[in-house]
Amino acid sequence: MSMRLYDLAADDERIRFSPYCWRIKMALAHKGLAAQTVPWRFTDKQAIASTGQGKVPVLVDDDQWLHESWDIALYLDRAYPDRPRLIPEGAVGETRFIKHWSETSLHPALFRLIVADIHSILAPQDRDYFRTTREKMLGRRLEEASENREADRVRLHTALEPLRRAVSGQLFIAGEGPAFADYIPFGALQWTRCVTTYDLLAPDDPVSLWFERMLDLYDGLGRHAPRPLSQGQGVKV
Amino acid sequence: MSMRLYDLAADDERIRFSPYCWRIKMALAHKGLAAQTVPWRFTDKQAIASTGQGKVPVLVDDDQWLHESWDIALYLDRAYPDRPRLIPEGAVGETRFIKHWSETSLHPALFRLIVADIHSILAPQDRDYFRTTREKMLGRRLEEASENREADRVRLHTALEPLRRAVSGQLFIAGEGPAFADYIPFGALQWTRCVTTYDLLAPDDPVSLWFERMLDLYDGLGRHAPRPLSQGQGVKV
Repeated sequence: MSMRLYDLAADDERIRFSPYCWRIKMALAHKGLAAQTVPWRFTDKQAIASTGQGKVPVLVDDDQWLHESWDIALYLDRAYPDRPRLIPEGAVGETRFIKHWSETSLHPALFRLIVADIHSILAPQDRDYFRTTREKMLGRRLEEASENREADRVRLHTALEPLRRAVSGQLFIAGEGPAFADYIPFGALQWTRCVTTYDLLAPDDPVSLWFERMLDLYDGLGRHAPRPLSQGQGVKV
Repeated sequence: MSMRLYDLAADDERIRFSPYCWRIKMALAHKGLAAQTVPWRFTDKQAIASTGQGKVPVLVDDDQWLHESWDIALYLDRAYPDRPRLIPEGAVGETRFIKHWSETSLHPALFRLIVADIHSILAPQDRDYFRTTREKMLGRRLEEASENREADRVRLHTALEPLRRAVSGQLFIAGEGPAFADYIPFGALQWTRCVTTYDLLAPDDPVSLWFERMLDLYDGLGRHAPRPLSQGQGVKV
């Protein structure tokens, strides 16, 4: 068994920040599968051309090339049925709803706050591509994405409310142990953690307490991920 | 087996509009269980006093008094394990997330738009109670709840996005067949349908198409629910 995961990297290739790649790194750890990660930049389209699209995560399992984090998770449960399930058998639709919630509610609320931070850590060859595509999404310049940070933080706090309630009464979204339903919003918050030097949430927010539990999983896989130390001062490893 | 469900009613007791009661009416149908519904008004606290709280749904199964729609759903799966499960075994946490999403994102977006409609159909003895408690929640008068309906409709459209995506690729949130994960947001939209004379969603919205499928379930249980005909002109049955 030899797996390879194309994993979005900053200019400093130790910084790996894609929310979708984080879903899969946690998923592989959940299933006890090892994969060699390959640093990948937004403009490295050629390296993953055989998937017929231009985004990571891309997982290569022997000679199979897989893409789309959701499809990769379903694949891992199908191909490795004897290992702990990522998505419980009866929970595929419900987990898929959480993916849609994360992508339409949580990601946009975070994106405005961190998009300029992301741009500042990218490899030089990625910067134009990122600026052009993201300014089109935002309808404004990156530097103006979060003009009213206080209002954007309130918006984020509101967007997190279902997650906050879900993890107030129990350890993980899925229950006593984590599942792919947890790795999805974890990816979003880890995206933020890996590109910023500051915290967006209060330390006593139940979401923060859950995120700390997530960072501890798998020998601190998430916690040990390098992040920027402070603007222009290298990397915290 | 003799079940009784206390079910929130308007002045015209045929109109039953509680989103939480609708969850349970659909849940009982899902499990093939019959219950006699008892019309209940906000101020009928005495009738359900033995539950130690003042809200419906309250389900009486033989001599057990149950309350809280989520707990009732868990109870029904536990007490009637041979009938179709409402919440698949591995999907409790994920379904609970959808409940929190519905209550913190969908309900508030709908509430502002329909709160004045609700007030207008209540029994006279419920009106003061409703106005006082709801104006406290809203921080303004009922009549001012939706001062900018166009903005509120846009907000609702945004709040529905995860549901829209979830039911675009498949028939129900839970997959090929409905589960409690579907009955939760169905309850919210049926709440709206049972108190208004107009539609809040475009007929070609995937959410509307899913809602139509939900209305068809169990011989049109939801579709045949009486609703106001038009302001001050009786009831459509």
